[in-house]
Amino acid sequence: MTVDDKRKIAVVGVGAVGSATAYAVMISGLVSELVLVDINRERAEGEAMDLAHGASFIKPIRIYAGEYKDCRDADIVIFCAGANQKPGETRLDLVQRNFAVLKDVLENLMPLKDDGILLMVSNPVDILTYAALRLTRLPPAQVIGSGTVLDSSRFRYLLSQYCQVEPRNIHAYVVGEHGDTEVPLWSLANIAGMPVQEFCCWRGVPCLDPEEISRRVREAAYEVIARKGATYYAIGLAVKRICESILRDENSILTVSGLVDGEYGISGVCLSLPSIVNRTGRARVLAVPLAAREEEALHHSARTLQSIIAQLDLP
Amino acid sequence: MTVDDKRKIAVVGVGAVGSATAYAVMISGLVSELVLVDINRERAEGEAMDLAHGASFIKPIRIYAGEYKDCRDADIVIFCAGANQKPGETRLDLVQRNFAVLKDVLENLMPLKDDGILLMVSNPVDILTYAALRLTRLPPAQVIGSGTVLDSSRFRYLLSQYCQVEPRNIHAYVVGEHGDTEVPLWSLANIAGMPVQEFCCWRGVPCLDPEEISRRVREAAYEVIARKGATYYAIGLAVKRICESILRDENSILTVSGLVDGEYGISGVCLSLPSIVNRTGRARVLAVPLAAREEEALHHSARTLQSIIAQLDLP
Amino acid sequence: MTVDDKRKIAVVGVGAVGSATAYAVMISGLVSELVLVDINRERAEGEAMDLAHGASFIKPIRIYAGEYKDCRDADIVIFCAGANQKPGETRLDLVQRNFAVLKDVLENLMPLKDDGILLMVSNPVDILTYAALRLTRLPPAQVIGSGTVLDSSRFRYLLSQYCQVEPRNIHAYVVGEHGDTEVPLWSLANIAGMPVQEFCCWRGVPCLDPEEISRRVREAAYEVIARKGATYYAIGLAVKRICESILRDENSILTVSGLVDGEYGISGVCLSLPSIVNRTGRARVLAVPLAAREEEALHHSARTLQSIIAQLDLP
Amino acid sequence: MTVDDKRKIAVVGVGAVGSATAYAVMISGLVSELVLVDINRERAEGEAMDLAHGASFIKPIRIYAGEYKDCRDADIVIFCAGANQKPGETRLDLVQRNFAVLKDVLENLMPLKDDGILLMVSNPVDILTYAALRLTRLPPAQVIGSGTVLDSSRFRYLLSQYCQVEPRNIHAYVVGEHGDTEVPLWSLANIAGMPVQEFCCWRGVPCLDPEEISRRVREAAYEVIARKGATYYAIGLAVKRICESILRDENSILTVSGLVDGEYGISGVCLSLPSIVNRTGRARVLAVPLAAREEEALHHSARTLQSIIAQLDLP
Repeated sequence: MTVDDKRKIAVVGVGAVGSATAYAVMISGLVSELVLVDINRERAEGEAMDLAHGASFIKPIRIYAGEYKDCRDADIVIFCAGANQKPGETRLDLVQRNFAVLKDVLENLMPLKDDGILLMVSNPVDILTYAALRLTRLPPAQVIGSGTVLDSSRFRYLLSQYCQVEPRNIHAYVVGEHGDTEVPLWSLANIAGMPVQEFCCWRGVPCLDPEEISRRVREAAYEVIARKGATYYAIGLAVKRICESILRDENSILTVSGLVDGEYGISGVCLSLPSIVNRTGRARVLAVPLAAREEEALHHSARTLQSIIAQLDLP
Repeated sequence: MTVDDKRKIAVVGVGAVGSATAYAVMISGLVSELVLVDINRERAEGEAMDLAHGASFIKPIRIYAGEYKDCRDADIVIFCAGANQKPGETRLDLVQRNFAVLKDVLENLMPLKDDGILLMVSNPVDILTYAALRLTRLPPAQVIGSGTVLDSSRFRYLLSQYCQVEPRNIHAYVVGEHGDTEVPLWSLANIAGMPVQEFCCWRGVPCLDPEEISRRVREAAYEVIARKGATYYAIGLAVKRICESILRDENSILTVSGLVDGEYGISGVCLSLPSIVNRTGRARVLAVPLAAREEEALHHSARTLQSIIAQLDLP
Repeated sequence: MTVDDKRKIAVVGVGAVGSATAYAVMISGLVSELVLVDINRERAEGEAMDLAHGASFIKPIRIYAGEYKDCRDADIVIFCAGANQKPGETRLDLVQRNFAVLKDVLENLMPLKDDGILLMVSNPVDILTYAALRLTRLPPAQVIGSGTVLDSSRFRYLLSQYCQVEPRNIHAYVVGEHGDTEVPLWSLANIAGMPVQEFCCWRGVPCLDPEEISRRVREAAYEVIARKGATYYAIGLAVKRICESILRDENSILTVSGLVDGEYGISGVCLSLPSIVNRTGRARVLAVPLAAREEEALHHSARTLQSIIAQLDLP
Repeated sequence: MTVDDKRKIAVVGVGAVGSATAYAVMISGLVSELVLVDINRERAEGEAMDLAHGASFIKPIRIYAGEYKDCRDADIVIFCAGANQKPGETRLDLVQRNFAVLKDVLENLMPLKDDGILLMVSNPVDILTYAALRLTRLPPAQVIGSGTVLDSSRFRYLLSQYCQVEPRNIHAYVVGEHGDTEVPLWSLANIAGMPVQEFCCWRGVPCLDPEEISRRVREAAYEVIARKGATYYAIGLAVKRICESILRDENSILTVSGLVDGEYGISGVCLSLPSIVNRTGRARVLAVPLAAREEEALHHSARTLQSIIAQLDLP
């Protein structure tokens, strides 16, 4: 008898983001097994120990430092390897460095199990997701980038603070690049069906300035990095959320990154659009109606990403 | 109408331990409000932002960077300020540095609300808990140290790995100093009422070596620090567990640190013993039966702590 | 030292709905104390025992059968007393019977603690909420009916089934009476900002018939009652959700019932509208934009309820 | 690509116990799919509707009324079919009636998937577990009875009430028949390593009477039935706990019922002993050390069950 329905996640690269993600996943009780892999084996061991020592406070889980081969029976491999964004650096500056890391890792990592999902988190996430898709030749649904799931959360959080209503009641998305060209979809943003600005007036709070909110969402990572040197806690929860939707086969709508194949006339690039996420991965992309300036901004985002992709040495 | 039953936790000092603790508390849904205070205001703001950006993935919570005065309506103030243990350094080496930090903070922090709990996490935690008790003149039940809650968890985890049984089924405590003189209570350790070593034989795993396990529990922090430079995830969950037992008025038995007042002939010191923890704090201490060598080791632990306390300039 | 932030819920009336609600609340870990009160003391004892025997599988909680006076320090009193809807009976048929029960109970129950919330669940819930408000003279924010929170959940569930997307991504409300005149707000219903019917086409599922869905939402209780004789599980979760939003001070938007005071030109009646729910109760009502036929249907719902209220002997 | 790691539970027989179990499982978020099967198809539909209408308040889950064939890809089939214990009736009185039901159901139900677990809940649970084992010829590890998991919980709960300490800190088991001959293991019962009675003295509560506590545990079901006509909530949580330990591969120690094969010189019967439960089912039985009178009582329990088994027409 084989026990094939054990749930297992592998985290490759356990710097600040990888280890915070492992912590959030571990606390969630989502999986029975969690393996940490890092080029620095000692670091992986240290993180696995620090996490495992808290195991008696949560639902039982097996946590250990492993090798690439330990990823081959994982349901999801979360890719967090590579360098982090430095203060003042854009996500795109990282590209050549992290592309090299990706190629190295994939050579050792592959193949995944048949229905395994490769979840890219390292930045620039859209570029690396596209590169991973081309390098692995996996079906597009199985190669997902964390994309703007975090940016959408930041957008909702800022609106919820402003409007004094809980974030889950804010319906709002950020699409496009996880980076400077991202596009907050104000035309769709609503609270209980009321456009956000109308809601503000009604709630008796000062009218919000969309430009100001959009700027704060876009620059959130820079603001955090300027203050604490890095961002890792919120992304950890965002990645946990994506894993949950995959493993629990939830059909949730999340702004994950993935191959765009004709939507809005865009193709040959990975970026974030609202997508249905279930056990098969990024099952469907929603071509939600966009305002003209939003669609234009999305094209700009796509072109920015495509111009970088063109500089990579892809098969 | 006043709303006095909002649950609020304050974390003072948001280095790696303070912020990981805030993350674990935030994810747990235990409180509606979480304030972060740090001598480095920017750092507190950065941590609050990084945490708050994940708020849309969890139960609603208000998270912000605040001032000492924002701690005065908190149900629990978690003290994580001060320097961390460096590679090769013992917890006791830190004492004078962190004692000075404690005095400074308490001057600004006090008073707490009437039934507020001061939960000490900074190291050397037993010394600082004792100092906080003397400096604040709070009732002993309300000044708690995280103590050996984490060490007990490490003990259970190692036994659970060894015996291939889930940690919650391992009944085992570490008492005394949270540090080199700590005392794992092998005489009480059992799995389903079977002494641990007997269980091993039965489970068909090699007989474990108690000295080896004790050593690994005692040196766990050093092992983690050697590999990743610090420990913070497991302690975050341990502190969350203590807060849960307090705020949910659970009457849980946890090896928190606190004033020992005659138990085993020991007094004038804070150290960890199995204690009943509820909304009033460390409500009762259990004088569990100890083997002769365990009681002797506990006295050694107490004397070690007392000799350090004697060097502090306490009121 | 008083411990005033213990969270306590009282359930008055532990028939099928009251006990399923107690079960859902108990499992949630939301409170530390749960008291069950029933005119049939034995029944309350039996339910308390059956619940308490499962306490070792969940977060610690004190559960017991009590008297009306045990409700006076509860944060929320959930009113589930009275007769249930019988097969073929409308919710309004119950009115005189349950109004008499309400008067009896309130005489013994009152006063609540200062910031206590009275949460009405018994049917016809809108009528009884209004009656409770008049009989107790409590501030309107503190007297809440479970209203159409359940109907909104049914609406979302049916749409989620139809559209193959998870219910939390469906943004849709039912307002008005919890009963035959309720109003599903199709004009606001959306999935990721796409109108529901458009989403269906895109998702490749047959176009849904709004009339058919509305009918199934409206008749859901009848359908369940015809098959199992009563409904109680879903309402238990709906009530738990309302309690969570209150006790965690969440500012959630829920279609609870409460006094309407001028919205859409309606007053002198309790019915459900999207409302902000926090620790003060039903803090604000949202006058969301309605289509003309929806507003008309809401007025019809209000008039139906008002004509029944007129038949009650209210102070 | 097949998605074989979707977690699915089937509940066969949705009377009060089956439906409360489904409710507890649904709320736990443990599975993505829950199918309800009943000889009364309408009843199953009604329960599925009542549960599913609450789905928007919990983690996404697919719930539906199905046929026996819908159980064939379930990870766990929970058997709750058959008559309930009536007031005054013992669990053993039910035997012939429910044995007939079991045979009928198994003919239609089998085969399970390769690693599927058959979890028996209907009473007399030990007899029916043994019968199911013989009728299905499944490996013994895969046929589990809920056994005294609930009785152990009741034992802990009563002790926790008495000793004013949270149930999870009470280490105590009930073994043997889930019924009148069950055996509470006082010799192993402890709180933080202190024998329960010693703990009482220390805690300053009146010394407890073991006979009285044992009697209350043994008669708990009768007491509840006398007051509310049936028991179903606590057993629902007990079954959820077993399912969790299976699906999360937890290696938990639970007093489930299963084939005894030589332990304490007993064989040819199913009864409860502390057992390690993981994804393979009841993986190992712990022959914990018993006091002489406990072992004697266990033999009495086994003989009682064997004499009933002898009356069944088993292959």
